[in-house]
Amino acid sequence: MTQHTPQPEDVFAWIDAAERAREQAGLVRTLRPRPASSPLLDLASNDYLGLSRHPETVRGACAAAERWGAGATGSRLVTGTTELHTELERELADFAGFEAALVLSSGYAANLAAVTALGGRGTLVVSDAGNHASIVDGCRLSRAEVAVTPHGDPESVRKTLAGHAGRALLVTDSVFSVDGDAAPLAAYAEACRDAGAALVVDDAHGLGVLGEGGRGALHAAGLAGAPGVIATMTLSKSLGSQGGAVLGPAKVIRHLVNTARAFIFDTGLAPAAAGAALASLRLLRREPERAARVREVAADLYGRLTASGLTAARPDAAVVSVRAPSASAALRWAADCREAGLSVGCFRPPSVPDGISRLRLTARADLTGDEIVRAVGTVLRTAPAGATDR
Amino acid sequence: MTQHTPQPEDVFAWIDAAERAREQAGLVRTLRPRPASSPLLDLASNDYLGLSRHPETVRGACAAAERWGAGATGSRLVTGTTELHTELERELADFAGFEAALVLSSGYAANLAAVTALGGRGTLVVSDAGNHASIVDGCRLSRAEVAVTPHGDPESVRKTLAGHAGRALLVTDSVFSVDGDAAPLAAYAEACRDAGAALVVDDAHGLGVLGEGGRGALHAAGLAGAPGVIATMTLSKSLGSQGGAVLGPAKVIRHLVNTARAFIFDTGLAPAAAGAALASLRLLRREPERAARVREVAADLYGRLTASGLTAARPDAAVVSVRAPSASAALRWAADCREAGLSVGCFRPPSVPDGISRLRLTARADLTGDEIVRAVGTVLRTAPAGATDR
Ligand SMILES: Cc1ncc(COP(=O)(O)O)c(C=O)c1O
Ligand SMILES: Cc1ncc(COP(=O)(O)O)c(C=O)c1O
Repeated sequence: MTQHTPQPEDVFAWIDAAERAREQAGLVRTLRPRPASSPLLDLASNDYLGLSRHPETVRGACAAAERWGAGATGSRLVTGTTELHTELERELADFAGFEAALVLSSGYAANLAAVTALGGRGTLVVSDAGNHASIVDGCRLSRAEVAVTPHGDPESVRKTLAGHAGRALLVTDSVFSVDGDAAPLAAYAEACRDAGAALVVDDAHGLGVLGEGGRGALHAAGLAGAPGVIATMTLSKSLGSQGGAVLGPAKVIRHLVNTARAFIFDTGLAPAAAGAALASLRLLRREPERAARVREVAADLYGRLTASGLTAARPDAAVVSVRAPSASAALRWAADCREAGLSVGCFRPPSVPDGISRLRLTARADLTGDEIVRAVGTVLRTAPAGATDR
Repeated sequence: MTQHTPQPEDVFAWIDAAERAREQAGLVRTLRPRPASSPLLDLASNDYLGLSRHPETVRGACAAAERWGAGATGSRLVTGTTELHTELERELADFAGFEAALVLSSGYAANLAAVTALGGRGTLVVSDAGNHASIVDGCRLSRAEVAVTPHGDPESVRKTLAGHAGRALLVTDSVFSVDGDAAPLAAYAEACRDAGAALVVDDAHGLGVLGEGGRGALHAAGLAGAPGVIATMTLSKSLGSQGGAVLGPAKVIRHLVNTARAFIFDTGLAPAAAGAALASLRLLRREPERAARVREVAADLYGRLTASGLTAARPDAAVVSVRAPSASAALRWAADCREAGLSVGCFRPPSVPDGISRLRLTARADLTGDEIVRAVGTVLRTAPAGATDR
């Protein structure tokens, strides 16, 4: 007589169905490892200033690893704060025009930290519908009452704030990552001022691109260091490194140090990343024209693409977003570009809030005129039926 | 006639009150930047194997920055996956005994990604009460039904799982960061098997310390690569770098690539951090005795401290946690140690789930016998009244 042995079931069997559904919808994402020297022309990365491989930035990474070690060795409140972290915080705050800064391990963590530490039970957090996933997750974690207002709509923000009696804050991207459009910062700031609410702006795509010498969208709007205004940033785009930061009044930074879980319970940023970001920042101070150049490149890309009949959003910073007729057409389009030697981003649901798929081209300060012409030519030559209006 | 100008109020005035409350409770946290060559003996960091400054690890960081640049330049699904990331994922999975791995920018992000991608509406997530903040935040973000079970209590887990009909998973630290105690992994795994639930284990403090040659707590328990078992890890402790990873069946990893927000919307890990972690991993393979050594050091520290009358939890890995009579006594004790040349961690509310403040000492594989004697001597000499039982 044999005993009945229960058949071990695959507890992850449900994933098979999810996978099939994705396949059928043409929405499977796969990782494509790139080699160290890619033959592709890069219009997909967020290395807006072309600093990620700049010798000074790379030397900043190496020198920091050699001097401080490969890791921070602990959370920032235990052993993870080196003098290098403090130096980066000081220079970043000074550059962007804020009293103080706090460096975290990513821009994602910076948004979680800022929104949770300033939100909290009883607070109203008003969030623009186009905000980045890390802000949305920060809202979800904050235990605050969250109100999502239509994308770029200060009137809705004003009305929502007016309906709330207690503490409130508005959180928004400065430049939205999908379409590259800017938030109405001045109107948002005014709505906040009138309601006594704080304003938290994620300047991930503004730092290094907007404002005088790349000081960011808040600096450009005259809002850097203004009372009630907080900025979050990433060190991974214009500064070509990794990490994030929150900038604002010193007491807000102290409050984050004491209460923000995503700061307190996370290992400090690796010295190499801090050193690289600091080197990039110093380089940008010395060569402020890099910021203007990336805006020129973006405007040039946009002008050429739309002149040829493609539908794109006018870029407010470095991101040029081109509409595709469908998710599968966008995927095919990006693949055809890649085969023709051009790397572009492809944004499809669920990464696009409005369900519209796009090619996402990013300007870089170090793109040459020839490269721009080549890139635009490739995008046009591979455009699917229905992408152009002629 | 002058117009009435509304007095601009400080929207962050509420922080002043929060700050005063912290001061009165003696719970203010401040950052203490350390110099590159600290004179302090380090028993505070999580650099368990002493690899963060190992020449091979540092060289791994530098070589990667030089070859790949200072940043990954984009999210993993766009430009942020280099062949280096893939290599690290392969070797990490192979080392720890899993089919596949996914590298993220931190252990925090790894836990957010794993718990949210495997949780979700309708799922029951059972979470040990002692779990790390990043797991707790993952639970909060998952939209799953979350049940917190008493710390280290498989019977409660079993009962909680039995009361749920749909998909379920249990999530636990392998070694709890505050007290250094191990989870009852075998019993937890059995409860999951019996209920058809998945098991997610955060091996942040087990990798490099537990199991054959530091292969981790799951390997030690015979659970590495078992069906239904997922590991999360950090690259920032034993591997002396920065970053995190999720390990499991290839299809689970694919599912994370397609659905985990903390993975999809975050810039890829900086090449220097990936290169350092890979160098450390190879070093650990070549010198597996480092893992046994750190356990020996921890046992030695524990033995000497308790022999002198201090109250400590028997260390299951590298963390030796010593009870302090109060939060203020713990703070003073740690400060006195520091003045005497010894760096130790100090855990106080709200970072301790049970409200009990402790000194947190961490063993390192490269601590010498003399250093251990000196450290224990300093801890004893500075012990506050009420810390010893004699
Ligand atoms: C608007 C925005 N905020 C935050 C982030 C997250 O920054 P990080 O990649 O450093 O985590 C990104 C992109 O990654 C972003 O586009
Ligand atoms: C148990 C545990 N899980 C996760 C983490 C987070 O890892 P990381 O610091 O790489 O974000 C830590 C510590 O930082 C930890 O102690």
